[in-house]
Amino acid sequence: MIEIVTIGDELTSGSTINTNAGFIAQRLYSIGLPISRMTTVGDGIEDIIGALRSPLHQTRFIIITGGLGPTGDDRTAEAAAAAFGKQLLLNQEAFTLMEKKFKQLQRKMNPANKKQALLPEGARVIPNPVGTACGFLVTDGPRHFMFFPGVPEEVRAITDSFAIDYLKTALNPKQVVLNKTLKVFGLWESAIHEKLKGALPDSDVVTIGYYPQYPEISIKITAKGSDTAVVQKEMMRFQEIIRDHIGDYIYSESGEPLEAVIGDLLKARKVTLAVAESCTGGLISHKLTNISGSSEYLERTVVVYSNRAKTELLNVPTEMLGEYGAVSEPVARCMAQSVRERAGTTYGLAVTGIAGPTGGSPEKPVGTVFIAVAGDTQTKVKHHRFHGNRERVKMMSAHVALTLLRHVILGTSLD
Amino acid sequence: MIEIVTIGDELTSGSTINTNAGFIAQRLYSIGLPISRMTTVGDGIEDIIGALRSPLHQTRFIIITGGLGPTGDDRTAEAAAAAFGKQLLLNQEAFTLMEKKFKQLQRKMNPANKKQALLPEGARVIPNPVGTACGFLVTDGPRHFMFFPGVPEEVRAITDSFAIDYLKTALNPKQVVLNKTLKVFGLWESAIHEKLKGALPDSDVVTIGYYPQYPEISIKITAKGSDTAVVQKEMMRFQEIIRDHIGDYIYSESGEPLEAVIGDLLKARKVTLAVAESCTGGLISHKLTNISGSSEYLERTVVVYSNRAKTELLNVPTEMLGEYGAVSEPVARCMAQSVRERAGTTYGLAVTGIAGPTGGSPEKPVGTVFIAVAGDTQTKVKHHRFHGNRERVKMMSAHVALTLLRHVILGTSLD
Repeated sequence: MIEIVTIGDELTSGSTINTNAGFIAQRLYSIGLPISRMTTVGDGIEDIIGALRSPLHQTRFIIITGGLGPTGDDRTAEAAAAAFGKQLLLNQEAFTLMEKKFKQLQRKMNPANKKQALLPEGARVIPNPVGTACGFLVTDGPRHFMFFPGVPEEVRAITDSFAIDYLKTALNPKQVVLNKTLKVFGLWESAIHEKLKGALPDSDVVTIGYYPQYPEISIKITAKGSDTAVVQKEMMRFQEIIRDHIGDYIYSESGEPLEAVIGDLLKARKVTLAVAESCTGGLISHKLTNISGSSEYLERTVVVYSNRAKTELLNVPTEMLGEYGAVSEPVARCMAQSVRERAGTTYGLAVTGIAGPTGGSPEKPVGTVFIAVAGDTQTKVKHHRFHGNRERVKMMSAHVALTLLRHVILGTSLD
Repeated sequence: MIEIVTIGDELTSGSTINTNAGFIAQRLYSIGLPISRMTTVGDGIEDIIGALRSPLHQTRFIIITGGLGPTGDDRTAEAAAAAFGKQLLLNQEAFTLMEKKFKQLQRKMNPANKKQALLPEGARVIPNPVGTACGFLVTDGPRHFMFFPGVPEEVRAITDSFAIDYLKTALNPKQVVLNKTLKVFGLWESAIHEKLKGALPDSDVVTIGYYPQYPEISIKITAKGSDTAVVQKEMMRFQEIIRDHIGDYIYSESGEPLEAVIGDLLKARKVTLAVAESCTGGLISHKLTNISGSSEYLERTVVVYSNRAKTELLNVPTEMLGEYGAVSEPVARCMAQSVRERAGTTYGLAVTGIAGPTGGSPEKPVGTVFIAVAGDTQTKVKHHRFHGNRERVKMMSAHVALTLLRHVILGTSLD
């Protein structure tokens, strides 16, 4: 059982997001060592002492980051000495290591740096592979307290160079840990739960986590145990059950984003794509081009924000715009077909809608979106009504458009 | 005084970085309410109960996020009932609010959602302005526990719609607190430090925070004190000093994003814009269209990912592409001029470059980007070399392109 304590006013004031605790947790979790609690306190010495004195009953290992710098508001070593009833002494090994490091970096050691070698009596020095300040380890009864400097790069280096081996040796985790991330779009968390409830057996080996990240959900399957064969079998069994129940909505079983999945589909089939966006304003194209190699299949995108652009770049007839409006089934269809034809691509994807907050009407409220995919023989057009602010309507429209494209490429359908 | 408890296996396993605690802390800090401790535990009910029972001696207000979802691993309400010795009951007000919200969003309420209205007896419902699940408040002796769903957007909304007023009323911070966010682009954090070091006096009233958010930095000035006149005067004095030293790099003094600043400039001048993107792939257009009302000035964007598109949509001569390559000064110039001309807009903005990781060469390594702005009388073209992965090159290119456009509109220059 392991806890993490992160120290710093920059964390408690919210001026810095705490990435250290998450990094350490992730590294330890991946080798089967879970974190039971994370605590953050400011630079005040009483708060640090309080945090060092309050690990949970069963915690034997505590990793502490921050407050080891050269300035007066770095008081972790002092707090550690006070918390464990030890003296703060100049640690010769730490001092020598620091001198060496400064020399190596051709930097001048300031008198203030000497303070960083003042450690609690009996502390074991933990070398810092990247920075100048050492970490240190203090044992107090059954408890092992590991102190690291708070610079994220140094936390990462010391976690990998010291903490992992130290904890592996001490805790000897015999577990095999497997992780799998299924990406789901088109079902909300509650609907997924509804469909899986009753289907998923209780298990000592497998745990399942649901992580919504608007507008999609990641399902994370973790399988843990001492027997590799059992762990693998259970992982496969659970994956199978989930696939059986919501397979239509799973677009990736390897954690890939939707635009990467679509890129792989297009590349494998050696087919190409052109996009015409109105309300999504370039978001679909931005997503597609985040994937390295997208120039192989994305020929062009036009963002036709004005009617003039719709007419000039996509031959949308002025009469059609007048009769049906720019946000309409015929215009979406025409946009998809024209962009495909002009670009000479296999597919044309088009979106036209009202992202809001203005521009809505009783017949076409904000969130009204038409999505069209044109292929060789036919064009599919879907009418949607999305909710939320401008950003959400854009995100949802892009996701639904890419999903429709995926189904057209695969020849599948959710209807 | 105030503690924050964040709940979720995704946090203790390090699969999600904890942004909720930092957000809440930052908002409360900015009104003079500091956080004394932040605690994170997993979804296990005993761990949640433990966290609810262990606030520091002097803590009266505890904000808890997470574990209020519809699935079986969301057990915060159950843990709260257990921790405070209350029954878990269907809260009719919460249920009615949920029904209303689902109706409004035209989504079907699942039986699993009903669980989200099961709250500890006597809990006060906290409405959720964006999501479907309510928060709730439980008092236990002198302590006030506020429970929010863990979705970051919902945490933000409920913090602003509820927590701030509630805590202000309860704690009545007598301080005047002023905040100002200056957005800076074009200088790294260390360079800002270097330029401001020595210039900024010590102050009991003003604190300054630097928040890098790639590729820009926000400088947050907080002025606090009991005397409004003094606080205002000090805020202005510091703002002035910062402006004197790095004013050229400050594009907003009200925290607005760059694309909003540009939108305001274009609207104020009643001028228009067309964009031609290659390596940024639609990102510039996506940013511009995130601003409501952007259809007033953004006429169109073309993402010309292929040479064919460059030629067809922007008249880039095939010979020019052959002689100089698609990533070149003449092509960037031609793209900006052509998109402006074809769209009939005041300005044309163009970007062509190599986002990587592939496609680089010794003469034109990955990160080589040409940016052009065409106006009525002249076209400015800049050659850049950016570093980092594909995503970073795209982001940096978009930011630098919008910055060049801003300077052209303003008639200013950084050179």
